[in-house]
Amino acid sequence: MKIQQGKSVYKGIAIGKISIYQNGQQVVKRRHVDDVEAEIKRFEDARDLAVEQLGNLYEKALTEVGEANAAIFEVHQMMLEDLDYEESIINIIRNQELNAEYAVASTGENFSEMFASMDDDYMKGRAADVKDVSERLVRVLSGVGEERLGTDEPVIIVADDLAPSETIQLDKSKVLAFITRHGSVNSHTAILARMMNIPALIGVDFEQDWDGALAVVDGFQGTVYVEPTKEVLEEKRRIQEEEKEKERLLQNLKGEENITLDGRKINLFANIGNVSDLGAVLQNDAGGIGLFRSEFLYLERDTYPTEEEQFQVYKRVAETMGGKKVIIRTLDIGADKQADYFNLDKEENPALGYRAIRICLDRTDIFKTQLRAIYRASMFGTISIMFPMIISVEEVRRIKEIIQEVKDELKQAQVPYKDVEIGIMIETPAAAMISDLLAKEVDFFSVGTNDLTQYTLAIDRQNPKLDHLYEPDHPAIMRMLKMIADNGHKGGCWVGICGELAANLELTEEFLKMGYDELSVSPTFILPLRQKVRESKALIDA
Amino acid sequence: MKIQQGKSVYKGIAIGKISIYQNGQQVVKRRHVDDVEAEIKRFEDARDLAVEQLGNLYEKALTEVGEANAAIFEVHQMMLEDLDYEESIINIIRNQELNAEYAVASTGENFSEMFASMDDDYMKGRAADVKDVSERLVRVLSGVGEERLGTDEPVIIVADDLAPSETIQLDKSKVLAFITRHGSVNSHTAILARMMNIPALIGVDFEQDWDGALAVVDGFQGTVYVEPTKEVLEEKRRIQEEEKEKERLLQNLKGEENITLDGRKINLFANIGNVSDLGAVLQNDAGGIGLFRSEFLYLERDTYPTEEEQFQVYKRVAETMGGKKVIIRTLDIGADKQADYFNLDKEENPALGYRAIRICLDRTDIFKTQLRAIYRASMFGTISIMFPMIISVEEVRRIKEIIQEVKDELKQAQVPYKDVEIGIMIETPAAAMISDLLAKEVDFFSVGTNDLTQYTLAIDRQNPKLDHLYEPDHPAIMRMLKMIADNGHKGGCWVGICGELAANLELTEEFLKMGYDELSVSPTFILPLRQKVRESKALIDA
Repeated sequence: MKIQQGKSVYKGIAIGKISIYQNGQQVVKRRHVDDVEAEIKRFEDARDLAVEQLGNLYEKALTEVGEANAAIFEVHQMMLEDLDYEESIINIIRNQELNAEYAVASTGENFSEMFASMDDDYMKGRAADVKDVSERLVRVLSGVGEERLGTDEPVIIVADDLAPSETIQLDKSKVLAFITRHGSVNSHTAILARMMNIPALIGVDFEQDWDGALAVVDGFQGTVYVEPTKEVLEEKRRIQEEEKEKERLLQNLKGEENITLDGRKINLFANIGNVSDLGAVLQNDAGGIGLFRSEFLYLERDTYPTEEEQFQVYKRVAETMGGKKVIIRTLDIGADKQADYFNLDKEENPALGYRAIRICLDRTDIFKTQLRAIYRASMFGTISIMFPMIISVEEVRRIKEIIQEVKDELKQAQVPYKDVEIGIMIETPAAAMISDLLAKEVDFFSVGTNDLTQYTLAIDRQNPKLDHLYEPDHPAIMRMLKMIADNGHKGGCWVGICGELAANLELTEEFLKMGYDELSVSPTFILPLRQKVRESKALIDA
Repeated sequence: MKIQQGKSVYKGIAIGKISIYQNGQQVVKRRHVDDVEAEIKRFEDARDLAVEQLGNLYEKALTEVGEANAAIFEVHQMMLEDLDYEESIINIIRNQELNAEYAVASTGENFSEMFASMDDDYMKGRAADVKDVSERLVRVLSGVGEERLGTDEPVIIVADDLAPSETIQLDKSKVLAFITRHGSVNSHTAILARMMNIPALIGVDFEQDWDGALAVVDGFQGTVYVEPTKEVLEEKRRIQEEEKEKERLLQNLKGEENITLDGRKINLFANIGNVSDLGAVLQNDAGGIGLFRSEFLYLERDTYPTEEEQFQVYKRVAETMGGKKVIIRTLDIGADKQADYFNLDKEENPALGYRAIRICLDRTDIFKTQLRAIYRASMFGTISIMFPMIISVEEVRRIKEIIQEVKDELKQAQVPYKDVEIGIMIETPAAAMISDLLAKEVDFFSVGTNDLTQYTLAIDRQNPKLDHLYEPDHPAIMRMLKMIADNGHKGGCWVGICGELAANLELTEEFLKMGYDELSVSPTFILPLRQKVRESKALIDA
């Protein structure tokens, strides 16, 4: 038995054979061709086939991982059809009388280096894509198939790293676990593992001779056992069975109430970032949508979404949820979420910058378009609106004035709408400190613990140098949460949490005792959270 | 009378003649030279003279504006002596047989463009410097003198903008006010005006025919009156007299106590960033140094300052203050304060990044060197130590362990030291929220309102897009200040404020009522603040 330790990015136990996934670089031979025009034709055919493959992958990804994650394949298609890229390849074939594989591989290298040297972070990121796409083209030219998982039985995938296009091509029913040498906690593979609900380890120093060996992946401890002893195998099987049993029990909780042992009911809602997440919301029996991130309507586009486009989306979500509450958060763009057509300046500290409500209150045309779309959709379900990055009472009052203008205009135009609940995100220390004053202005609070923690601790949570200091349940945060709940209730608001902390089962009972009325989490956390609520007490023991 | 409105960057009234300062570009003629070697010699002589001029300017700046601001002239000297720069000039003279003025000007242009196109912000900033230095060289070559202020009587300087090297060359006794078309609130000219205590306006759209005209500059209202009417002149003279009278009254406060009407005494200390500020500290009768920013020892250098170098500086400050308290803040580097030799990574949000105590607790060698120097200096006065960017009790405990190690080592080596007061900056919302817990660990708190406001409001205060939202006396901040004072006192700490807010005279009485024991401000604010304290009540009326 060999034991290797890695870092777990998703929990669970997997037992099965290892399949080492050989990615990337195929050896490309440089070869003289006599019939240059035939070789160009061969490249063009291969290119068309690759574009077609990518189209299929896009459709597959759309249903499996949603539009935002699928978009990468559209980008790849565009790269293949880029005229500079094509011209470079054809030039190499024609002028140097060389084979298409070589022309593609060397063009891919050149373009990749060019992108990598660019100043713009977005363009830098494209370096890996142009390589990925060139490798695909070489594979097509060499007649190597798409599916490189040469097995019929489900396996543990072991690889140096996995590109998005590689993970998406995998037949998910044949993957038991992921193990990679590189990658990060927030890598695409990690996200995929979470969605597939299978264990994944990163930072594992594997060896080539593991290929085909039986192994156990323990995603609780971050360990992989190659050719495990009988004892290890039995022990891990037992844990695996227990987990399955837990999963079955969770499924039994569908349709049950979120009620504590001492009889307090709370709302467990889902956070979603796209319409495609609605399936998971229903499947996991969420009581509503606690955070509908409307940014996806604005990102990965060339221009502002129209009122009608937005209206159709909000209407669809409201209808799908059939009367259950849908809390739409207005545009939270800026900081790490950028769309070129907004023409936002580059900032020294974007997280402390021009973003979210600050942009909306400046560019009220954009804001009013969104509000009109939401109010129009209000007729088709139970919609609430919530505003991000609030720091003052004045901002809330200004928002309410703008809402009134929107309602007056709709009335004027005889467009029907309903009055909806108005709430704010509490995600700045300022909002927490004046939550008593803010509570008088709105119907509800939803605490965004991610940003609140970031600002309170003065730590950019995406900065790896500070991982060891980032403590989401820091006493300062827990005290603010208590203060916010108390102030909200005193002011007649209901209070919820929609940041990642809401899913932390170790804190559930504490949140209940603070009086939180709602927790909004990723859909897959709804049932474990329901179970936790049903095992908890909400009242502080006398 | 012409009236122009600008933005005031320093208050006061000035009355006098306008002198329009013609900066920058002289017309450089392209001329063929026959004796190339003589021309090269002419360039080399001029270069040597310019280097000498810069040496004199450096010495002048050192006494007038301190080492940090003087350093620019050293940079200019280095540029003049740069081999690439020299080679480019000589090549143009020799290969194209052109005159030195032209060679210098075109090399200056080329280098400036090259710097401007660089990725690195520091290098970008050098574009203006290389132009500045080339213009100096052209002036020397053309026989144009240094002093371009052609007047004997004091004047109001009007210019498009003023480079550091230009302001430093001005005979300060002949400047009544600054007016510029460009520049920002934090420009060098603004800083200079504050130090010289004369009014300064930016953003003024002046005309060339103002040169020589009588004018009034009103730095309270940001207005300039050219050829003022008798009424305006009399009115402004009256205000000017009142201001002078106030200034005289303030001078009478030297040696007086900082005591409120109801008998409460507080400490008014000074913030300093360099040894050269000590003169202003003594001159303005500060009761001590409330914030000694030790960064200057680390910035604008090529390597870490040694223990001995630091010790000499701390000792000098302690001795100069003659037993009055000197609170040394340990290294607060990172964010907008960078030193290349620390090799810090570029960060997405440096203000929320790897900085200050976070670096010191990682790189304890640097930290211990500083602590040893401070403890050694403790024998020569009354030193306290304060730590920046604290977010947790654990950090403070770790700091205390390291201090113990340092003291043990000094004892071991038989180096004398005294035990000193230990305090922390409260400048993160986290520290404010857990100030009750932190108070048990230390002797004092000093609230850094600049960073505290930045994090609490989630606003980078250097981001011009957010100026309208940055509200330093936001109710959230005022509530935190109250909480910090209460918690500090309960835990047996004295509490002070050393951020910019401490100098806000409109809040002084409120700070006194909150119970603050110390306010630490720029030296020039000490006497106005003393006056304010003496007019205030510290007790809340029953």
